[in-house]
Amino acid sequence: MFKIGILGAGTWGTALGILLSNNGHEVTLWTKIEEEAKSLEASRDNLKNLPGAKLPENIKITLDLKEACTNKDIIVMAVASPYVRATSKEASSYIKEGQIIVNVSKGIENNTLLTLADVIREEIPQADIAVMSGPSHAEEVSRLIPTTIVVGASSKETAHFIQDVFMNEVFRVYTSPDMIGIELGAALKNVIALAAGIIDGLGFGDNTKAALMTRGIAEISRLGIKMGGCMETFSGLSGIGDLFVTCTSRHSRNRQAGYLIGKGYTLEQVHKEVSQVVEGVNTAKAALALAQKYQVEMPIVEQINLVLFEGKSAKDAAADLLVRDKRIEYKTLEWD
Amino acid sequence: MFKIGILGAGTWGTALGILLSNNGHEVTLWTKIEEEAKSLEASRDNLKNLPGAKLPENIKITLDLKEACTNKDIIVMAVASPYVRATSKEASSYIKEGQIIVNVSKGIENNTLLTLADVIREEIPQADIAVMSGPSHAEEVSRLIPTTIVVGASSKETAHFIQDVFMNEVFRVYTSPDMIGIELGAALKNVIALAAGIIDGLGFGDNTKAALMTRGIAEISRLGIKMGGCMETFSGLSGIGDLFVTCTSRHSRNRQAGYLIGKGYTLEQVHKEVSQVVEGVNTAKAALALAQKYQVEMPIVEQINLVLFEGKSAKDAAADLLVRDKRIEYKTLEWD
Repeated sequence: MFKIGILGAGTWGTALGILLSNNGHEVTLWTKIEEEAKSLEASRDNLKNLPGAKLPENIKITLDLKEACTNKDIIVMAVASPYVRATSKEASSYIKEGQIIVNVSKGIENNTLLTLADVIREEIPQADIAVMSGPSHAEEVSRLIPTTIVVGASSKETAHFIQDVFMNEVFRVYTSPDMIGIELGAALKNVIALAAGIIDGLGFGDNTKAALMTRGIAEISRLGIKMGGCMETFSGLSGIGDLFVTCTSRHSRNRQAGYLIGKGYTLEQVHKEVSQVVEGVNTAKAALALAQKYQVEMPIVEQINLVLFEGKSAKDAAADLLVRDKRIEYKTLEWD
Repeated sequence: MFKIGILGAGTWGTALGILLSNNGHEVTLWTKIEEEAKSLEASRDNLKNLPGAKLPENIKITLDLKEACTNKDIIVMAVASPYVRATSKEASSYIKEGQIIVNVSKGIENNTLLTLADVIREEIPQADIAVMSGPSHAEEVSRLIPTTIVVGASSKETAHFIQDVFMNEVFRVYTSPDMIGIELGAALKNVIALAAGIIDGLGFGDNTKAALMTRGIAEISRLGIKMGGCMETFSGLSGIGDLFVTCTSRHSRNRQAGYLIGKGYTLEQVHKEVSQVVEGVNTAKAALALAQKYQVEMPIVEQINLVLFEGKSAKDAAADLLVRDKRIEYKTLEWD
């Protein structure tokens, strides 16, 4: 039995808390938001954001960051991406040398273009940082629906320790050394999910959406490999796996936001309708900047940015994406 | 304007006929089945298997194989996979040296373990054989829903010619030299779609299905690369693209068949319910034989075979797949 501190009591942090508590670990769940702590305490028997799930009695909810960070075997970083740096900065002084921190937040910091593991590393250089991602809607994990995920860590020992702590009969954990690939897939797929939602909102078909998703993961892979990730990872759980689930699931906020944009909603109207954070909107700008920095062709990311921030209509963007020059599928594959 | 003969007047052959006719080509659509020819003629205004679609007046329906094969710029092989060899054998004497044949049938011949392009090549060695695949439900293509597909051919010239003939504003054609990769992805993904349908039928969640699909394409890639295909192709339109659409679409017969198996139907009951050919059932056996021949680990293919042909319950098969040893995601990726 290990001691786990979870930073962030949104749906994913809470679902992981339930999972870890069920695995027999001692879980402390931290939130900065007093209202959120109260609401969690009040609805332990039927969680508001995880309908049908219960928060076990032995999960301690706290507003005290020091308490959540001190004397823990693993700390899980699960705050929404825009708050990862501030939370890390605030937590740093409580964190001991070699502390394992598992980042499960997904995104890229807009001004620095760093992955969130790198953001945490900047603020908490003494920590041993790992990442975890895969097709894992919190709503299903909290209901014990079989889920498979991948952990990336800087050493095999750390990866195996995290695997042992999280793994159970319905939550299967694979390990990988490719942290950057896992993080980039996790973050960038949200932009493609927005685009897939737009395709749905515009009323196109399954053929169109599958093409968009395929070309989308190809864009992500091109960029990710240039940034040091491995091709296999983008074809794995944190790449196409997460993309599958995010683009098709009834639970995905990114897909839902895209759907509304496809139906003609403005970004402001979308934010009103989808009350939780839509990570893909935050990530779209960073993805475009990375495409430019690494000189990678990312037509879907470009069009999404035009739609989100430059007033281009979703319909025009889709048309521009569809009617591209005919070309070979992969420039790396050529006839002899 | 070119002359096209299409062999096979099922949904895909017919949809491609409509597409090519709309592109201005002269299309002859052959079927061996008199009933099918009559039914097509009778329902030109509202096709039975392609609801809402019309068969243009200038598409000639014929029962005469010689007529469909003679004096054509392109012949499209679109019969169901078990009939590809017999149709090729019968057609061979009508086919001239260098005749371009585009195979759009998907499958692997059970006794020889050959891809269908290789089956055609055995029977019609004088032909220039190409393949075409991708996320392309016939029902959507016939309704002009934007679709993207890849053509594989033995020369760039042939690939570009086929691209020019098929391409239009809503049907985007990419080219590739990786014929074997395209064919294996197309055939084998039907087995994974059956498995995905079973997951749905058993009542698992989106997380579970995404994991299954991801591990499924990994199996296909492992085998396909050993057989000479390229990794990129399995991550492309004929790999994950086709898998996306087949595993999630309301139009997929393979997914539907799996769903019924997950609900407890026997294979016999499934065949009664799903009146058209379920290619994945035919391909499952061949996939297992290929896995053994090339010594590739394919746990999903193994379990599907046990369920289809050995009486194992879908529930037990799913449990055995889920509770595998913990392991690294890719054996090729390791810590330094």
